Amino acid sequence: MTSFFEKEIYEQPQILARFLANNLEEVKAISAHLRKVNPQFVLIAARGTSDNAAIYAKYLLSAFLRIPVGLAIPSLYTLYQQPPLMRKTFVIGISQSGASPDVIAVMEEAQKQKCPTLAIVNRLDAPMIQFADQTIPLHCGEEKAVAASKTHTAQLLAIACLTATWLDDQRMINQLNFVPELIQKAIETHSVVRDIAEQIKHHNRLLIVGRGFTHCTTHEMALKIKELSYISADPYSAADFKHGPIALLEEGFPLIAIAPQGKTFQSMKDLIEEVNQAGAETIVVSNEVSLAHDPSKFIPLPQALPEWIAPIAAVVPGQLLALSLTLARGNDPDKPRRLTKVTKTI
Amino acid sequence: MTSFFEKEIYEQPQILARFLANNLEEVKAISAHLRKVNPQFVLIAARGTSDNAAIYAKYLLSAFLRIPVGLAIPSLYTLYQQPPLMRKTFVIGISQSGASPDVIAVMEEAQKQKCPTLAIVNRLDAPMIQFADQTIPLHCGEEKAVAASKTHTAQLLAIACLTATWLDDQRMINQLNFVPELIQKAIETHSVVRDIAEQIKHHNRLLIVGRGFTHCTTHEMALKIKELSYISADPYSAADFKHGPIALLEEGFPLIAIAPQGKTFQSMKDLIEEVNQAGAETIVVSNEVSLAHDPSKFIPLPQALPEWIAPIAAVVPGQLLALSLTLARGNDPDKPRRLTKVTKTI
Repeated sequence: MTSFFEKEIYEQPQILARFLANNLEEVKAISAHLRKVNPQFVLIAARGTSDNAAIYAKYLLSAFLRIPVGLAIPSLYTLYQQPPLMRKTFVIGISQSGASPDVIAVMEEAQKQKCPTLAIVNRLDAPMIQFADQTIPLHCGEEKAVAASKTHTAQLLAIACLTATWLDDQRMINQLNFVPELIQKAIETHSVVRDIAEQIKHHNRLLIVGRGFTHCTTHEMALKIKELSYISADPYSAADFKHGPIALLEEGFPLIAIAPQGKTFQSMKDLIEEVNQAGAETIVVSNEVSLAHDPSKFIPLPQALPEWIAPIAAVVPGQLLALSLTLARGNDPDKPRRLTKVTKTI
Repeated sequence: MTSFFEKEIYEQPQILARFLANNLEEVKAISAHLRKVNPQFVLIAARGTSDNAAIYAKYLLSAFLRIPVGLAIPSLYTLYQQPPLMRKTFVIGISQSGASPDVIAVMEEAQKQKCPTLAIVNRLDAPMIQFADQTIPLHCGEEKAVAASKTHTAQLLAIACLTATWLDDQRMINQLNFVPELIQKAIETHSVVRDIAEQIKHHNRLLIVGRGFTHCTTHEMALKIKELSYISADPYSAADFKHGPIALLEEGFPLIAIAPQGKTFQSMKDLIEEVNQAGAETIVVSNEVSLAHDPSKFIPLPQALPEWIAPIAAVVPGQLLALSLTLARGNDPDKPRRLTKVTKTI
């Protein structure tokens, strides 16, 4: 029987197309408002998978809106009760359920300090909504799998929409329309990914390295693999990796390199050569065919993939790999140990 | 023969005492200037071990100065050439060598944008200094081990000094004087830590969990263990841990819980109970003796340890554990694979 997790991975092209059809105008209105507000700083509160979407937002808003972004520290708002003063700060909460008390506490404090606030949530009964001036509802329907897939790519798409419309860049807005098709192509790597999972399923640890915009992809891929297949997957930026963790590599150590075409490509290509020399069993996720010298270890990304939206497509092979590893190791992707759909932390 | 790494761990009380004697007045002057500048945001650029010191700074400046803090994204300044506009932003660069081009690029851009800048460096020939209005030199002498120890605790102490003097809080400033003695007590856990390393040396992965101010400790402990002993050590905040990675736990999985007394203690205590029930082999680092029911798995932190400076003492058992695991696994702590003292990334 197909798992909910697999079913929801496959639903993504349709759900993201629906998001664009239903939400783009609404997001444009939010962006018009933000251009007037003109915040000088952005703080984002999130946990787990949503925190990986927050990393994507950190990169896009810093690079394109040129606003410095910080990831909020929820314990300062809850346990310590010493929250920062958020002057000229736009505060975003990202959460599937919108129900975790620590993420809500950040939004509540932001509203108390009269910061503009935005909630990006899936559940329309999300308690977080009441502390947000604006809400982007993801309209994914109920996510039945404990591990998020469709709500995560919808979060990423919402962030991409917010960036493109806030910037009011018509070329970027047009590119958003290709996302559902790009995701569809990424899903079509399923059989390739399944074969790769068979090759590495006996390892209990692996590394995932990316750079720049795909930093969020390494984190989300690692989280999915850890929570479903119980393999210790460690995410790194290619630069940070060289400041220590590269020492971990030994003969046959599985390393997944996420290397889409674009400004970070050369640094990833150099890293791949370096880790190959160190004996790593390198799996490459890329749309640069010159890296496909071993097709049994190559997961193709769609051609003509704009670098700034590459993470939305690149995470899909990660979802499929987490699924395939979990099944190959004889576990149920819908029943990860000790996890429930909604995690409430303070 | 004793390694440089071990020697430098043991040098720390003396070096930190010297730092306080030599630098406190200088840091007070920098802080007096910062009170006038009154920045609304802080951005910190760092890599590797220094990035773990940046996490400490993020927590202290957010909690006590109440300024939101972001960790800079160096690739936006180098590969993408799309740096954010850092309005009313104070920019800090932290680096032992002050020589990594990506960290320097952030400082250079900050100076171009006329932001106030501070370099926290050990080497007095650090190229980063020329892009900083102010410098806190760590005066640790040459660090011969590839893996940082004394320069890291000196970075933490510099950040604590900056926080206390910027806040102009005499009680906190007085507490700084106890740091060398607290570090000395933490070093005295060496034989306990060595026995624990013997118990867990055959594992190739482990988890490290903390909360709040000790979030930086989990990251630094994990980095040291990875780069020297080649064990995959995964750091987590207790809250994030419950949003997914807790699924990794199985019978006998080693987990290090950092639980000093203070506002996060109860949440760590609850987590320890939960992971014990899941069968984890839990090593507790704490100054709360009620958690010492198995003394062979308990690393004592000094009593009377103010919560805000606990990370400076709590990282020391992590350094000793990395050292002990490395020796127990038959490796040379001064010769980690593929690493050099100064890592230059773009």
